Amino acid sequence: MKTPVDIAVTGAAGQIAYSLLFRLAAGELLGSDQPINLHLLEIPPALPALSGVMMELQDCAYPLLNKVIASSDAERAFQSVDYAFLLGARPRSQGMERRDLLQANAEIFSVQGRALNAVASREVKVLVTGNPANTNALIACHNAPDLSPANFAAMSMLDHNRALAQLAEKAGVTNRYIKNMIVWGNHSATQYPDLHYATIKGQDALSIIEWSWFVDQFIPSVQQRGSQIIAKRGLSSAASAANAAIAQMKAWINNTDDNDWLSMAIMSDGSYGIESGLFFSFPVVVNQGNIEMVADLKLNEFSRERLRLTEMELKSERDEVRHLL
Amino acid sequence: MKTPVDIAVTGAAGQIAYSLLFRLAAGELLGSDQPINLHLLEIPPALPALSGVMMELQDCAYPLLNKVIASSDAERAFQSVDYAFLLGARPRSQGMERRDLLQANAEIFSVQGRALNAVASREVKVLVTGNPANTNALIACHNAPDLSPANFAAMSMLDHNRALAQLAEKAGVTNRYIKNMIVWGNHSATQYPDLHYATIKGQDALSIIEWSWFVDQFIPSVQQRGSQIIAKRGLSSAASAANAAIAQMKAWINNTDDNDWLSMAIMSDGSYGIESGLFFSFPVVVNQGNIEMVADLKLNEFSRERLRLTEMELKSERDEVRHLL
Repeated sequence: MKTPVDIAVTGAAGQIAYSLLFRLAAGELLGSDQPINLHLLEIPPALPALSGVMMELQDCAYPLLNKVIASSDAERAFQSVDYAFLLGARPRSQGMERRDLLQANAEIFSVQGRALNAVASREVKVLVTGNPANTNALIACHNAPDLSPANFAAMSMLDHNRALAQLAEKAGVTNRYIKNMIVWGNHSATQYPDLHYATIKGQDALSIIEWSWFVDQFIPSVQQRGSQIIAKRGLSSAASAANAAIAQMKAWINNTDDNDWLSMAIMSDGSYGIESGLFFSFPVVVNQGNIEMVADLKLNEFSRERLRLTEMELKSERDEVRHLL
Repeated sequence: MKTPVDIAVTGAAGQIAYSLLFRLAAGELLGSDQPINLHLLEIPPALPALSGVMMELQDCAYPLLNKVIASSDAERAFQSVDYAFLLGARPRSQGMERRDLLQANAEIFSVQGRALNAVASREVKVLVTGNPANTNALIACHNAPDLSPANFAAMSMLDHNRALAQLAEKAGVTNRYIKNMIVWGNHSATQYPDLHYATIKGQDALSIIEWSWFVDQFIPSVQQRGSQIIAKRGLSSAASAANAAIAQMKAWINNTDDNDWLSMAIMSDGSYGIESGLFFSFPVVVNQGNIEMVADLKLNEFSRERLRLTEMELKSERDEVRHLL
C-alpha cells in the first residue's frame, strides 16, 4: 500500500462536504490504490454533527480511508496536508450587508491562510470554494507568505461545467464535443462565460449558435444558475459544487486534456489587463501539476467590457478587506 | 463508446438519492467506460425538487451520463432498466402506527413490482433500500411473477459494513483484515451481526475479542447504529446508505472476493430453518452475477435463537401485508 495522502476539508459538516467526503474516500480524486487521511475542520457548534458524518464515513468501510481527524483548530487540521478544500464560509444571513459578509469571511480565511502557511505541505494545493471564493482565496494567499500564490486557486469549475452543459444542450451534442470553453472573472453574477474560442465538434461555436442566444440566454443563464437551482430545490447546489471541486482538483493534479482548456481562478499576473494580484478565472492548461494561463488570446470589445465589469467587482471586494491583506 | 446501461432510482429527490446519483453518474458502479441513462421516479409533489437535482446532474457535465429521464409513473421510469435502486419509501410520520407504515409502503412496492414485471429487463437487478426494506422487497418480488426472485435483493450491506467497521475499530486493524462477517435477518433492530465465522488477520475473531463485548457492545451497537447517527446529525444516514447501495449492487454485478462473504437479503429457500419466501439477510458469495447463499454453516444455540427472533419479526411484517402478496 502507498503512503496515505493528507486531504483537508473545511466546513466538513456542511452540505457540500457531505457530497464531497464520501467521493474522496471512495478514491475518486486520487485513484483506487491511494490511501488517504481526511482532516476535517469545523466551527465548534458543528462538531457534534461532524461526529455523525464521521460515523457514516466509518460505516462505509472504505478500503482507502486510513484515518479521519476532526478539529476546530486550523493549525491542527491543516498539519502536513497535501490538498485542502476550503468549503466552509459564512453564509449571508437576514439583514447582513455585503460588507459584513466579506468581513466575516475575510476573518475566517485569514486565519486559515496563516495556518496553512505554518503547517501545510510546501506543495499543498488549496482550492477555495466557500464564497466569495475569489476574494477568500486572495485573503488566504496573502496570509500565507511562505507559500506561493501558485499553491492557491478558487473554484471556477462549477461555472465552467454549467457553461459546457448549457452549450451542449443547445447544440444537441454531448459535453465531450465542446472544447475551449472559458469562464472569466469572479464566481458571481458578473462572471463572463465566453464562447468566442469554444468549438462544437471542431467548428466555432459562434458560427453555429446565434449571437443573440449567446448574449441574451447563455450568459445570464450561466450567471444565474445557482439561484435557479435554489428556486427548484429549496437548497443551494451542493452535489454539483462538490463534483466541480473534485474535478478542478483532479485536473490540477493531472494534466489537462490535449487541445482543451479549463477555467480556474488563479492570481492575475496582469495578463488581459486584469489587475495583478486579484484571483480571477482565466482559461488554463495544467502541465505536471502547474496551472498555466492560456495567454495572448485576442479579445474583442464585447469581451473586454465583460472582463472589465467582473474585474471591477473583484477590486471592490478586495478594497473592503484591504486591512487584512 | 459502449451502449448506455439503464439504471432506475426511486425516491430520486430524496436524501439517499442525492448521495447516490452523482456517484453513479461519475462511473462508480459500472466503471469509467460505461455510459448510463438514469431513470428517476418520484411522487408528483417532489417533481419540482427533482428538476433541481437534474439541473445539478447536468451541471456536472459528466462524460458518462447519456440521458436522464424523470417520471412519477413507475412503468415509464422502469422501461427496459437493467438495475433498479428502490430507495423511496414512506417514512413514519407522527402518530403513524407500524401497521399503517407497512401498509403505505406495501402499496408503493406492489405498484413498483408490477411495473418492473411489465417493463424492466428480464435480467434486472432490483435492490430495495427503502424501509422496511426486506418486506418491501418481498412485496415487489411477489408482484413481479414473470421475474425470478433472484432478480430481487434487499440491502444488508450497510449493516454488514457497520459491523465490519465496528470490529475493525475494536481490533485496531483496517477493515480489509476482517473476513467472513455475517449479518443475519431483517434490516432492523432485530438483525443479528454474527462474529462466529469472522476472522481478523486469519484468526477467529471470537478467539481474540471477548464474548461479553460481542454480546453486550457489538450486537446492540450495530443494531442501533442508525439511531445513533440520527442523534448526532439530526438526519438519518444518507451518504453511508448510498455507499452501501453502490457496494451491494457492485458486488452483485461482479464476483465477490475469494475467501470472503458478504451479507445480502435474498429470498429464503428454507435454509437455516428460515421460512421459505421471506427476504432474509444471509452470508452470500456472488458468482457471475448470481447470488449464492453460503449454506450449511453450523450455528450454536445462541445464534439459532437470534435468527429465530429476527425471522419472527419478518413473519409478522409479512402477515400485515399478506393481502398484497
